[in-house]
Amino acid sequence: MSFVLDPRLEASTFAIGDLGLSRLLLMNDARFLWLILAPRRAGLTEIVDLGAPDRAALMEEIAALSQWLRRRAGTDKINVGALGNIVAQLHVHVIARRIGDPAWPGPVWGAGAAQPYEEGTARELAREIAGDLIN
Amino acid sequence: MSFVLDPRLEASTFAIGDLGLSRLLLMNDARFLWLILAPRRAGLTEIVDLGAPDRAALMEEIAALSQWLRRRAGTDKINVGALGNIVAQLHVHVIARRIGDPAWPGPVWGAGAAQPYEEGTARELAREIAGDLIN
Repeated sequence: MSFVLDPRLEASTFAIGDLGLSRLLLMNDARFLWLILAPRRAGLTEIVDLGAPDRAALMEEIAALSQWLRRRAGTDKINVGALGNIVAQLHVHVIARRIGDPAWPGPVWGAGAAQPYEEGTARELAREIAGDLIN
Repeated sequence: MSFVLDPRLEASTFAIGDLGLSRLLLMNDARFLWLILAPRRAGLTEIVDLGAPDRAALMEEIAALSQWLRRRAGTDKINVGALGNIVAQLHVHVIARRIGDPAWPGPVWGAGAAQPYEEGTARELAREIAGDLIN
């Protein structure tokens, strides 16, 4: 069984590229600088279902995204979450939070309607992120 | 500077004990089986601020808690989150979710008022968790 991104994740994000373990996605919500890591392993729903080397790789990908978000967005906080209550396929959110952002201080999940990017803006941002994070 | 648990985390949890990296806490909310890992490193707010060996240890502690929750609670999903928008001190939530639980399918954070445990119930649960997870 090979990895296929869940169609709901595909529909709500822009693909940036592939890291060592995960497909890197940009959430289509211009209210937040919001990245998603989807480990390219078929049929998994929980972090603990990854093998130990993949777990270690996922942690380092979370760290790399966090550093990038901090540098790029001047974060007040970084939110990291693996929920999957709606889309069960294993994926990890890494989100730049700013004091006073539209969901602050609550979580972004379920916090009102997404504000879709202009297509060109998202494509440019995805290219910038790929340039910085994808080897 | 030595590690001191944030008083707000202390007030809303029961201490279970110390794992290799983190203090293990039971959230005082009987609606969910909800554990928290607070890495015993002073002054940190983000996962990426941990050194790489501590990040690896944190990931393995998340995995150990996830396995325990799945076995103990028969989870439909496990939610893992490092938010810290309200209490900035680095801490990671690991929560057993069931379809139809009081916040399903939303996140538990901000989902209504906590339902405090009976003191004896929490102490017994904390002892059980310590017996299974603390060496």
